Amino acid sequence: MSSKDIGITIRKAQNFSDWYTQVITKAELADYSVAKGFMVLMPYGYSIWEKIYEFIDSRIKATGHKNAYFPTLIPESLLKKEAEHFAGFTPEVFWVTHAGEGELAERLAARPTSETIAYHSYAKWIKSWRDLPLLLNYWNSVLRAEITATRPFIRTSEFLWQEGHTVHESKEETDNEVMMILDLYRELIENLLAIPVITGKKTEREKFVGALYTTTLEALMGDGRALQMGTSHNLGQNFSKPFEIKFLGRDEKEHYAWQASWGISWRLIGALVMVHGDDKGLVLPPRIAPVQVVIVPIFFNDDEKKMVDARAREVQSELQTEKLSVEYDSREQFTPGWKFNDWEMKGVPMRIEVGPRDIRAGKVTVVRRDTGEKLPVGSAGMAKEISNILGLIQNNLFKKAKTYLEEHTTKIGDYQEFKDILPEKGGFLKACWCSNQQCEDKIKEETGATIRAIPFKEEVWSNCLYCGRPADKVAYFARAY
Amino acid sequence: MSSKDIGITIRKAQNFSDWYTQVITKAELADYSVAKGFMVLMPYGYSIWEKIYEFIDSRIKATGHKNAYFPTLIPESLLKKEAEHFAGFTPEVFWVTHAGEGELAERLAARPTSETIAYHSYAKWIKSWRDLPLLLNYWNSVLRAEITATRPFIRTSEFLWQEGHTVHESKEETDNEVMMILDLYRELIENLLAIPVITGKKTEREKFVGALYTTTLEALMGDGRALQMGTSHNLGQNFSKPFEIKFLGRDEKEHYAWQASWGISWRLIGALVMVHGDDKGLVLPPRIAPVQVVIVPIFFNDDEKKMVDARAREVQSELQTEKLSVEYDSREQFTPGWKFNDWEMKGVPMRIEVGPRDIRAGKVTVVRRDTGEKLPVGSAGMAKEISNILGLIQNNLFKKAKTYLEEHTTKIGDYQEFKDILPEKGGFLKACWCSNQQCEDKIKEETGATIRAIPFKEEVWSNCLYCGRPADKVAYFARAY
Repeated sequence: MSSKDIGITIRKAQNFSDWYTQVITKAELADYSVAKGFMVLMPYGYSIWEKIYEFIDSRIKATGHKNAYFPTLIPESLLKKEAEHFAGFTPEVFWVTHAGEGELAERLAARPTSETIAYHSYAKWIKSWRDLPLLLNYWNSVLRAEITATRPFIRTSEFLWQEGHTVHESKEETDNEVMMILDLYRELIENLLAIPVITGKKTEREKFVGALYTTTLEALMGDGRALQMGTSHNLGQNFSKPFEIKFLGRDEKEHYAWQASWGISWRLIGALVMVHGDDKGLVLPPRIAPVQVVIVPIFFNDDEKKMVDARAREVQSELQTEKLSVEYDSREQFTPGWKFNDWEMKGVPMRIEVGPRDIRAGKVTVVRRDTGEKLPVGSAGMAKEISNILGLIQNNLFKKAKTYLEEHTTKIGDYQEFKDILPEKGGFLKACWCSNQQCEDKIKEETGATIRAIPFKEEVWSNCLYCGRPADKVAYFARAY
Repeated sequence: MSSKDIGITIRKAQNFSDWYTQVITKAELADYSVAKGFMVLMPYGYSIWEKIYEFIDSRIKATGHKNAYFPTLIPESLLKKEAEHFAGFTPEVFWVTHAGEGELAERLAARPTSETIAYHSYAKWIKSWRDLPLLLNYWNSVLRAEITATRPFIRTSEFLWQEGHTVHESKEETDNEVMMILDLYRELIENLLAIPVITGKKTEREKFVGALYTTTLEALMGDGRALQMGTSHNLGQNFSKPFEIKFLGRDEKEHYAWQASWGISWRLIGALVMVHGDDKGLVLPPRIAPVQVVIVPIFFNDDEKKMVDARAREVQSELQTEKLSVEYDSREQFTPGWKFNDWEMKGVPMRIEVGPRDIRAGKVTVVRRDTGEKLPVGSAGMAKEISNILGLIQNNLFKKAKTYLEEHTTKIGDYQEFKDILPEKGGFLKACWCSNQQCEDKIKEETGATIRAIPFKEEVWSNCLYCGRPADKVAYFARAY
């Protein structure tokens, strides 16, 4: 937005945390806000969020979901209705106590999540099985006070997200919804964001407060720590009972409804930085990049400038007809070199250089952000070839991240190995576990690692990592954000 | 969403206010929330908001604006920076005083509008004229405690809106932005919503708190009261000075920036109801209707059912290729008559009946929501003809509303006439005014009418309505929501 200082000055391998913050701010994805713990989503970051929005919104609509909007403020009495849920959220609730000069009779919570306020309405709306399934989604922001450590996109006192809240006739139907959404999230994260994920269930300790069970998608960041990318919960009848969401079934009897809820947030933008970014800044996969190609003109005199400008505009419109998002950087106050750095910092997947020599040779020079490779691309069939190269970049980023994930997933034999590998290499440590929460707690206490996911289908191969008793689950452990 | 009781039971002419509320809730646009003064935007209402969003979002992007997101909570000290602005909003601010168990060192205001929090960032981002214009927009919700009377869409303690906040080098450039946006809003409101508007400036008394001047679009509701449909403000340098938004100009000197802000909200959905609705419920103009056409099958036995079902699906897909939004109501638990009422209540612009007789005659029966007219439409060129009829409906709704507006705009000679006509006929009373706020205040005190707009170009024809001294302005007065 404003003229910038030199590029990224911190190396990713040197100080991951400071590097991350520098990329976020210098690439102008986000800025710190004056209100402590809050951030501003800047236009460039917002445009990535819009790409995520478009994908999710169109897919959930195609599967029968509709959007709605529920109030930001929730009466305390309502938030308290599901006791476990309330206990889980209360430490981080922002409380509204006054309106204007007057004190409110009842405190209002700034929405930490919408289960309670939505389900109060659902109870009124749902009467018969004919009203089911009710498939709603809300695009909004939630507020959860982060008093201690904050980190842009990953841990802030407010974040943008979508929260789906659906109601069903049976547990089985709800299970299907939960898994359908998990698959949709996986498609977004793996195919658009080029970030491979591990999926599975959360343990009782780690599940959403109030859920029957939680399914999750977990990815590995560039520093070997795990990040929860999205969750999809089967809430069972845990909310329908206190909120009295009942329906007259096909059997003419009254039943409590079954419910699912699911969400992804702007933290996915943080993950993009932490997975694909490098010492030059952000690296965006083409399918999620708001600007896929930037054209930089190169010239040394006015005649060349005229010729180059005309050709650059031609190239831009040719690529636009192929539905590519192309920026032409004709700014006069900056040198080509400055522009190269600037767009590299912003992670634009491909740069096209157009200079007099390129024009004479009947080509353009394409530079890949992911590899730095320079490729001449001839005029004939240019748009198609450039689309192909963008496809290669997309695949390469996924493959790189996938290799990293595989190399940082270690099958663990015993607890000593676990304690050795965790600080040294990080990543996911795959081990067998007895399902006893005491072991889980102890491991966290002693190593800082939590169980990120219990994979849906993996066979136990040994006894419990911690207590040595028979194990019934495979667990992915990691230190996590 | 749930099985409904009989249709609208209150007549519009009888009790406008109760009729309005009944249409809102029975057409499932919105529902009251458990939190007093708040409402839930239900899926059907949300889908109208999405149409408004799509139009505005694409147009402002085409004119160079970008979206961003600023925090919901604003520190009190920041809100206080522009004194007039703070004084204007403070009676309706929701104050956050606690986070979890702890009391906050400084109270946080739930965003009543984002000028202050945004401009704090703008001051950091803007350094040179090269950073200008800064053209940003935010889609969010704002919270303003409505303690007294609330009315869904029109006056609630929270509403969805968009707020544009732009920064410019000069007053003239800012004036142009203000008028460009006003035109864009007019296009939305007149061409899509089919609601004619009066445009003009607000008086000093009625302008946005903190603005240099406010421009407005004002429409007339079905009960003769005015509704402010949207505003576009030139903020002058009123915020740039306290917030220190300065830039190095082309003249190498430092200048305070010029700013505009502008917004429309979900109240436009309320206006749709109040302008076009009738005793059967909502009437939606085709260009804003989420469902433009509903197909209702009519049959008396299983053979007919099969035939009708096949034909109805054919018709649906034929119309969809013409990019029409078409619902096929194949619900079996309801009679055709029940469905007719239901879709009329929801304001779907056109119903298509498909029965055995229609099929034999090689046609469908089209029923217009606006006139009730039944028209046979033959199979050849059906989609085109139906598109044409939707165009006629759009035009007819606008024309009807325009005629109503014209018939309820009265040019006033003297104050006695003003006082006679206002309670009897309502609408806009056009009069000459001396620009003195005392006259404006007295008229409001004595009649309840405020100046809704000073039209951009109308010639004064007499002395001031109230004091009889020379007038320099034409003013549109009305009782307003």
